[in-house]
Amino acid sequence: MTQNKQTRIGIIGATGYVGVELARILAPHPSFQLTVLNSKSFTGKRFSDIYPAFRSVIDLELTEPDADTLAASCDIVITALPHGVSAATVPGLLERGVRVLDHSGDFRFRDVKTYESAYNLPHPRPDLAVEAVYGLPEIYRESIRTARLVANPGCYPTCSILPLAPLLANNLIESSGIIINAVSGVSGAGRKAELAYAFCETESTFRPYGVAGHRHTPEIEQELGLVTGKPIAVSFTPHLAPMKRGMLATIYTRPLAGVAVADIGEALAKAYETEPFVRLLSGGALPDTRNTTGTNFIDIAYHFDEHSGFLKLFSALDNLGKGAAAQAVLALNLMVGLPEESGLMSAGMAI
Amino acid sequence: MTQNKQTRIGIIGATGYVGVELARILAPHPSFQLTVLNSKSFTGKRFSDIYPAFRSVIDLELTEPDADTLAASCDIVITALPHGVSAATVPGLLERGVRVLDHSGDFRFRDVKTYESAYNLPHPRPDLAVEAVYGLPEIYRESIRTARLVANPGCYPTCSILPLAPLLANNLIESSGIIINAVSGVSGAGRKAELAYAFCETESTFRPYGVAGHRHTPEIEQELGLVTGKPIAVSFTPHLAPMKRGMLATIYTRPLAGVAVADIGEALAKAYETEPFVRLLSGGALPDTRNTTGTNFIDIAYHFDEHSGFLKLFSALDNLGKGAAAQAVLALNLMVGLPEESGLMSAGMAI
Amino acid sequence: MTQNKQTRIGIIGATGYVGVELARILAPHPSFQLTVLNSKSFTGKRFSDIYPAFRSVIDLELTEPDADTLAASCDIVITALPHGVSAATVPGLLERGVRVLDHSGDFRFRDVKTYESAYNLPHPRPDLAVEAVYGLPEIYRESIRTARLVANPGCYPTCSILPLAPLLANNLIESSGIIINAVSGVSGAGRKAELAYAFCETESTFRPYGVAGHRHTPEIEQELGLVTGKPIAVSFTPHLAPMKRGMLATIYTRPLAGVAVADIGEALAKAYETEPFVRLLSGGALPDTRNTTGTNFIDIAYHFDEHSGFLKLFSALDNLGKGAAAQAVLALNLMVGLPEESGLMSAGMAI
Amino acid sequence: MTQNKQTRIGIIGATGYVGVELARILAPHPSFQLTVLNSKSFTGKRFSDIYPAFRSVIDLELTEPDADTLAASCDIVITALPHGVSAATVPGLLERGVRVLDHSGDFRFRDVKTYESAYNLPHPRPDLAVEAVYGLPEIYRESIRTARLVANPGCYPTCSILPLAPLLANNLIESSGIIINAVSGVSGAGRKAELAYAFCETESTFRPYGVAGHRHTPEIEQELGLVTGKPIAVSFTPHLAPMKRGMLATIYTRPLAGVAVADIGEALAKAYETEPFVRLLSGGALPDTRNTTGTNFIDIAYHFDEHSGFLKLFSALDNLGKGAAAQAVLALNLMVGLPEESGLMSAGMAI
Repeated sequence: MTQNKQTRIGIIGATGYVGVELARILAPHPSFQLTVLNSKSFTGKRFSDIYPAFRSVIDLELTEPDADTLAASCDIVITALPHGVSAATVPGLLERGVRVLDHSGDFRFRDVKTYESAYNLPHPRPDLAVEAVYGLPEIYRESIRTARLVANPGCYPTCSILPLAPLLANNLIESSGIIINAVSGVSGAGRKAELAYAFCETESTFRPYGVAGHRHTPEIEQELGLVTGKPIAVSFTPHLAPMKRGMLATIYTRPLAGVAVADIGEALAKAYETEPFVRLLSGGALPDTRNTTGTNFIDIAYHFDEHSGFLKLFSALDNLGKGAAAQAVLALNLMVGLPEESGLMSAGMAI
Repeated sequence: MTQNKQTRIGIIGATGYVGVELARILAPHPSFQLTVLNSKSFTGKRFSDIYPAFRSVIDLELTEPDADTLAASCDIVITALPHGVSAATVPGLLERGVRVLDHSGDFRFRDVKTYESAYNLPHPRPDLAVEAVYGLPEIYRESIRTARLVANPGCYPTCSILPLAPLLANNLIESSGIIINAVSGVSGAGRKAELAYAFCETESTFRPYGVAGHRHTPEIEQELGLVTGKPIAVSFTPHLAPMKRGMLATIYTRPLAGVAVADIGEALAKAYETEPFVRLLSGGALPDTRNTTGTNFIDIAYHFDEHSGFLKLFSALDNLGKGAAAQAVLALNLMVGLPEESGLMSAGMAI
Repeated sequence: MTQNKQTRIGIIGATGYVGVELARILAPHPSFQLTVLNSKSFTGKRFSDIYPAFRSVIDLELTEPDADTLAASCDIVITALPHGVSAATVPGLLERGVRVLDHSGDFRFRDVKTYESAYNLPHPRPDLAVEAVYGLPEIYRESIRTARLVANPGCYPTCSILPLAPLLANNLIESSGIIINAVSGVSGAGRKAELAYAFCETESTFRPYGVAGHRHTPEIEQELGLVTGKPIAVSFTPHLAPMKRGMLATIYTRPLAGVAVADIGEALAKAYETEPFVRLLSGGALPDTRNTTGTNFIDIAYHFDEHSGFLKLFSALDNLGKGAAAQAVLALNLMVGLPEESGLMSAGMAI
Repeated sequence: MTQNKQTRIGIIGATGYVGVELARILAPHPSFQLTVLNSKSFTGKRFSDIYPAFRSVIDLELTEPDADTLAASCDIVITALPHGVSAATVPGLLERGVRVLDHSGDFRFRDVKTYESAYNLPHPRPDLAVEAVYGLPEIYRESIRTARLVANPGCYPTCSILPLAPLLANNLIESSGIIINAVSGVSGAGRKAELAYAFCETESTFRPYGVAGHRHTPEIEQELGLVTGKPIAVSFTPHLAPMKRGMLATIYTRPLAGVAVADIGEALAKAYETEPFVRLLSGGALPDTRNTTGTNFIDIAYHFDEHSGFLKLFSALDNLGKGAAAQAVLALNLMVGLPEESGLMSAGMAI
């Protein structure tokens, strides 16, 4: 197949789970060409040695990250690195004129004090934190198009912000007392040889974690605060489910006095009916994470529980898809002026 | 092994998942003898034909339910039948002098109007609904001992009531605005040839269900209302996780003004420190459903989220264990004056 | 995205698992346009009502199968129907000038007596059975290009024939005593509300089935017999593993006297080194079904066990991919003169 | 519950998966008292800190292994240690008069040369290797009763030897050309923080491993050789299935000339009809690993495939149960003169 793959893409940290999902989506993409795959741990091996699923698809050799080489070979570099490492790596790329899409938390915060408190690290480049665009296309579409540095949102924030933002923006729900009960598949923990994520310790069981404070909480609060124009505090609780991919948020909030259920539906419809990757469910349908597996879709439903007075919102996505790599590819599409759906209009692998 | 298995037990509806878990626990029990296993669908076959796991353990022939035979052969009969069917079956057994432990919703409600509204069925015997003892030993221990009819609690209610009851009883938390976000393994749906519970439709996915109203909500509210002395309305949302067994409730509530976090811990400790099957976790430990698999244990933890002002409660159990069959066996132990732990003091099959 | 999707495709039996995987692969295919999706059970509903994963991707209305409509709207029709039903449906389509790719066993046998004995049904159209091309591109590539009727191979036969054929063709192994120990994911059983495939009856367990004779045995034997030029009898034993997709064959055979291990590798390499979807593993690597998930790849390895004298062959594929829908799409590519890789060059979803 | 738990048991290596399954079975055992649990990695913690499933069941403190302490506190010590470590540990215990049941490969071989070749280690105590009794009760029952040192069999050998031994002993099948295609759940790999056994690398996939030689092969061959009275070479291939527990062997062999199918059934029945934990399936039933989960049962079936001339044997067990800990507990029962079924007569946790 001859394709005109004009835009050259490099990935630093290509062998983590976000990196491999990026590679999976980008391989058949009509306009992007993977030119550099970096991996400190596996330099010298082929990508398909580490991920045999890619044999005959991506047999590129893994190389050491090097800013000059990346600048020479890539139009955009995707950094899929731990926080802190990203902050140290991204400036050198930008200086060399490469645009960057970063997957860490390093550039997601407008206020570096929030970052420094959540990540317990000084931020080396507050100027870039301010410059970076938060890569949620439903909110920052126009800024992403021209951004030099895009901070790809976290999976939990994407899943939490999208159902809530239109309701807060339209002043339909209370901005305090929001509860986000969220569930993730195990790939959210990354590619790690840790006993806690061993098959025998994770299969057939369900558990909460991180209840004393998860770094995605301030990220959610930042974006919801920007929508409402005032600080917001949410209660966020993540859980681990025995599945590789998938994320579901069940959100509890209260409609403001005088708000009708129909107003909720209208606000969501108005916000998302032209959004290609936000699917509003109706007729009592509820999200099921498998419908989003491998895709950039987020499925959203709501239910007003008259009995208790709570409005329940449900949102599902693939933590590696819309929660990470697929959302990044949409940002790439925007950055180079492609149709947003380019390379992303696949159905979830539900079976 | 010669054992003095004095009490004769029969099960009607022995081949459903609750029935089979009862059989699994009762087979090695030192004091109970399974004498009759009824199954309308499989009359004439051996129990171990339907469940080959029981070959050499329980090879009893399955028979048609018959009140006279049951009365002649059993001291206690366990009914593991659909609601409505239980209500029609239980009176005949009681009339013949057999004590009954019922697994359906039919006798769980003090006020039959609540039952009739939740189950959309007239109740044939309001008198027995009033007489029946709700089989939650942590609350009704003494009444269970002498009960003629025990209504075994639902799995979600057991998981929800136990963490909340001591806090409501001691007036430590708000009685309104309680949110119960609950997750169940697939066996909770019972033994059914339904596409929704087929392996390919359930594995590797997570979804909410029953958001428009689940029959366990009024059951939870009845018991919490009795604790507080006034009507209570909770927001209850069940979800399905890709595992056979296991249930986790994540409960959100607010401490009343002036209540310290230590008060929460003390109330739970006071209520449960002598309870053999309630395990209060400490030191930041959180429940993991696998620790309760196959047992009568419920694991409870709490965390006060200063950031949002919510008190989070976490409780885990096995929906077929403490949520059904193991709790029933504890009631049997009480009914015949055995030590409560008899036949139940096993560790969860975590691996 | 505007694409020139010239070839119009219809699917009869679109809501079975093979149908839905066809839809998943065809939706983003650059050259095929799904124009008709038939489903007797769900006529009038949208495809995405039945498979919500397809919302916004394929929202086509499901219709009753009708030969005239199909002929008017489709260049090629894919029949994903039970055996017997296919045989009754295909002739009417061919008569109307539509080319057909059939997924059942109805047209896989050159000798209808073999079919009639394996499927216990008379064959209504022996002439079409003879005309049909067995859709295994590695063997019948040229015939598929011009075929009016392609019989898509079974999953087990594809997985079994490909590793064995070059060794038999080159007279390197004994043609008797071949043992095929095969394992399939649960989707191979199809979309059924059967207790045997319920989550609680299938998860966390492994079992053999169909040992008294599986319909794929004569299919394997037909093709291996054609390769060797004489009748061949294999011992085939299928098993069920607790996973949705994936198939692995472990094959035991004996090299003929004087054959060196290197000869085995050379024969496989010669047969497959230019085949885009057959990946020969080397360096001790062994197939892992997840590397093929969602793809048209088959991964093959071999190991000569000097200790016992057996040559072991290992082959892995996705029973819904190379074992069904992806292989069908490759046949479609051939039928209309597209590059074989068109729409199929994706990496397996290993994570 | 007051129980007369006369025999004091210690476990060295108590926090591995075999150790924890031993603890699970021994906790409610009527005659054994766990007095010492050793763990080098977790000395000073309670067993239930490492395995919270054991809270309230076994809260014993984990201690450093010390031969004098063990000798003072235990009648029998179970060593669940890596090979090599066992060989270094066991002699000191025996010298102090403690009987030992060892789970490693160190004392399973009569001929230490076989051991040294398979494990690539010199054997420090060939005398003890000769003295040790191979703990398969169906063959060595009488010797186990009085043994000072029992070498608990491997899981694959147990699953392979039992179906084959009576057929070889009665000269019904060919002793050459035996193929053992075996599948194990992931717990067989032990409790390890290794990427290969991470949830995301193991769930939903199936793969062979160890094809170049598995240490259980010479163990199987030793025992089958003793049965037949001559050296035997089998072809053994292990595979990994995505489940925590369970093992299935599918064995291919050929009946000797003149042997009728009925002879096979008779030989198995004669060997095992009085064996409490060997269940011979009949009427076309096939083993399903879940029927043995958590138990000491092995389920065996056979099928003669006239078509190919092979006799297929199927055997299923729990790799941690009859394949390790449950079989060990039966040996303990024998060693102290208890009924064999003591503490073991439970049904598999099939749901």
